[in-house]
Formats: sequence, C-alpha cells, structure tokens
Amino acid sequence: MIRSTTFLEVRYYETDLMGIVHHSNYIRYFECGRHKCMVDLGLPIERIENEFGIMLPVVSVECTYRKPAKMGDILRIESRIEQMPKAKIEVLTEIYNQNDELVVTGKVVLGFIHADTRKPTRVPQCMVDVFSPFFND
Amino acid sequence: MIRSTTFLEVRYYETDLMGIVHHSNYIRYFECGRHKCMVDLGLPIERIENEFGIMLPVVSVECTYRKPAKMGDILRIESRIEQMPKAKIEVLTEIYNQNDELVVTGKVVLGFIHADTRKPTRVPQCMVDVFSPFFND
Amino acid sequence: MIRSTTFLEVRYYETDLMGIVHHSNYIRYFECGRHKCMVDLGLPIERIENEFGIMLPVVSVECTYRKPAKMGDILRIESRIEQMPKAKIEVLTEIYNQNDELVVTGKVVLGFIHADTRKPTRVPQCMVDVFSPFFND
Amino acid sequence: MIRSTTFLEVRYYETDLMGIVHHSNYIRYFECGRHKCMVDLGLPIERIENEFGIMLPVVSVECTYRKPAKMGDILRIESRIEQMPKAKIEVLTEIYNQNDELVVTGKVVLGFIHADTRKPTRVPQCMVDVFSPFFND
Repeated sequence: MIRSTTFLEVRYYETDLMGIVHHSNYIRYFECGRHKCMVDLGLPIERIENEFGIMLPVVSVECTYRKPAKMGDILRIESRIEQMPKAKIEVLTEIYNQNDELVVTGKVVLGFIHADTRKPTRVPQCMVDVFSPFFND
Repeated sequence: MIRSTTFLEVRYYETDLMGIVHHSNYIRYFECGRHKCMVDLGLPIERIENEFGIMLPVVSVECTYRKPAKMGDILRIESRIEQMPKAKIEVLTEIYNQNDELVVTGKVVLGFIHADTRKPTRVPQCMVDVFSPFFND
Repeated sequence: MIRSTTFLEVRYYETDLMGIVHHSNYIRYFECGRHKCMVDLGLPIERIENEFGIMLPVVSVECTYRKPAKMGDILRIESRIEQMPKAKIEVLTEIYNQNDELVVTGKVVLGFIHADTRKPTRVPQCMVDVFSPFFND
Repeated sequence: MIRSTTFLEVRYYETDLMGIVHHSNYIRYFECGRHKCMVDLGLPIERIENEFGIMLPVVSVECTYRKPAKMGDILRIESRIEQMPKAKIEVLTEIYNQNDELVVTGKVVLGFIHADTRKPTRVPQCMVDVFSPFFND
C-alpha cells in the first residue's frame, strides 16, 4: 500500500454562507493530497505528463461528509493507494481536522490517456516502476 | 418525479492546464442545477433557511466523468428528484454539452439540520407541501 | 469605443460567510465580460491563441467595490475598450445588479506575448483589423 | 509598521490553461496573507466579527502582475500595514516565489461596518489597542 499525508489550512474564501467549507472544495483537497503523494514518491503528476506524455483525467469521485471544516481549521489529508494500478488508479482519502475528527472520506478514480491523442492507455511504466516496491506480494 | 433544467456557460477560470473544466467544478454545477430546481418550485434554498430555519448540508456526492467540457461550452444541467425526501433528499444530475453529449452524471444527497442548533431534522413541511404533487402515487 | 454587455447569475459557492459575493470573484466576472466582448467581435481569446499564437496575460487589475452582490442576483457586466490597444489593452468594466445599482467598477490591463516563447509583443494584426472600425477618428 | 509573512503552495486547480496561476487567485492569496497577519497579532478577523460585531468588507483592490506563479511553486506572501487605520485599513502585499522573484504586488483597502446594521463605522477599539504599539511615533 502507498500512503501519504499532507496538511492544508482552510482559507476564508473556501467557506460559504453556512460558515463551513463549501463541499466542492474537499474534491480539491483530495487532489492536493494525491499530488503530494506523487511528489513524495518522486513522480509528480506534471512529470508524468511532461516527460512521459501521459495525463491522468479523473474518471469518478465519491465523497462522504462527516463533519464540517471551518475557517482556520488545519486539515490533515490522508491519501492511500491500496491496489497496484492497471487501467485505472484508485486513491482513497480521509480528511481529519486538528482535533483528529474525521471530516470527509473520499475515493477518486483516475484513468491514463496519451497527452497528444487523448486516447486511453494503461498505467505508464514509470508509475509501475515507482509503485511496485509498495505492492510486492 | 421532479425535473429541472438549467444552462451554464463554462468560464475560463474553471478550466485547468488540460484545457478542460476542472473536475471539482461539476460538483458546483450540480449545486447550480438543484438551486434552479428549487427556484422553479418556488422554494429557493435561501428561503428554506431564512423563513423556516432549516439548512441542507451535503451528505454525500458522487460524480462520474464521461466527456470533458471545455471553455465556451454551453452546458445543460438536468436535475431530478425521483423519491419524496424523508430524512434526506437525493438529487440526480446529468450534464450535457451543446452537442447533446453526456459530460457527467452525478448524485448528491443532502440532509436537513436546524440552522440554530445544527441538529439533524426531517424534511421540512414546506418542502413536503411543495413536493407532494409530484409524488402522488 | 467598443462596448459589450453580458449577464451572470451569482452562484451559491461564490458567496462567503458574510452572505455576499467574495470580492475575488468580481475579477473573474470581469474576465467573463471581456471574453464575451471578444466573442461578440468574432475574435474569441482562444482563437487569438490557437490561430495566431498570441496569449493575453493580465498585467494589472483594479477593482472598487460599491455594493455587495448576493446569492441569486443577476449581474449585468458592462465592458468597454476606450482606446485602440498598442502594447497593451485596457478593459474597463462596470457591474450592475438587477435593480440597476452599481456593484463594482474595474480596470484590467492585458499584455500580448508569443505563446511559444512567452516574449512580449505588440497588439496582433488580427485584433487591429477587428478593432479599427470602432476607433476610426 | 506591521509586517507579516506567510507561505502558500500553489494548488493545481488554481492554474489555468496557460499553466500559470489564474490572476484572480492572487487576490485570494492577499486575503490569506492579511488573515495570517491578524492571527499573528492575536486578533483574527473572525474574532473581530464574533466578539466585537465589526466586519471588514473590501473597499478596493489593486494588483500588478510581474511574473507568473506555476503549479508547485511555494509562494511567500509579505503583508504590511504602513499606516494606523482610521476609517479604513490599507494592506500592502508582495508575493515572491521560492527563487525570491517578485510575482505580484498589491494593495487592498478594507472598511469597517457593524455586522448587524451593515452601517460603516471607524476602526474598532480592539484593533487600535493591538495596532498602536506598532505606530508609536
């Protein structure tokens, strides 16, 4: 399994009339979490695109909201990849606040496409190389 | 069943490096669609909060991405409520582009809470009154 | 002079804790207004980039806030270009609400750069051709 | 003079088609900077509203763009208040990237209003108390 943690502070403009983080922003926090995960692994998303010509469009998103985050909260984004990606990659995320309360849980599935043709492809070899030590069973 | 249609033009700042609408924005378009739906019914979300003291926090979101929307696309947001809400309300949405191609599908579940106590409650009577003609089976 | 009008409905997620449109969003509305202006002229910003290889980065922005816009407001974006662009283009904007009250005024200055080299250039000929009938004095 | 520094990492969804941070986002970064400034002083904006009933609407914004910020850049937000606020407060901001290159400069002016009546007022005493040691000339 691959795991990564990152921290984000809630910004004022991310909150809405209810005084809480607008629900769409967690989808963006998930992205921050998985980008951090790839940076931790030495394979930033931008590098996969620039060097290997592969982009990772989002295929589906699920998010369940447990407890609202508020202005000033420091959120801990816990991302994990439980399965070696093949045609797709699945990233699970849990977000906690500074009191260690679960704020949201989510699952994001991404595909792989060639940047030039926009045609689907399988997990690029660069990712297999980086990921396989974490899945050697 | 309750149905509502609204149109939105993709704005430049909603697109990302890939030249397509950032996936988090569809969650926002869903919201525009269901707000329009409530306005069509004469019961805007703000009125439920201001007059009846009930807020509708989002409980969960699911979105499946079929075809990317691009800058300048005119999107048609089709929202529908298939079941009379009880403790929760479920809104299904399909978004199409100007060529009638399916862009995304989604499901958003909202709960009901008292604005002052933030405690959960059931569907408010004002909503039952407005919705029931659509579900008289 | 070149003038263009477009209408935008305030979206829920654009409002903040104060119940009003977050001030950063007007900068985005300005952009919607000037994009509409270019579309009206038959020369969308994307076309200038795709066909002529020129991009228009924003050089400076000024915005003065008169009256807050709220959820559900229908805003009228009035954009105008008073001077034939040379090294830069200046777009003035006024935003009014549905009661014809002035919400904000703004000025945005954009430059011209070559998309490939990112080097500054002067107003592209395609824009001169389209604009000159409006400035023949 | 009051000075404060904060750091922000550029997030993917803040970049646009040009691969750079959308110009409206710097207005948001300014806000992050001044919020941090107030937190440093022990007087967070929310506290001014909650405890003293005073809100600080933005009156005007100016931003000049020097060098684009890109995905992954770590930005340093330098905020400063050069004059003791009276009817308004003026916050000057400079944003630098990780290579110490100037990205943008900005000036934001905020007013003071009573949260309940939304009527203008002068700088609240709580702010005078906190600020005056920095302006004893």
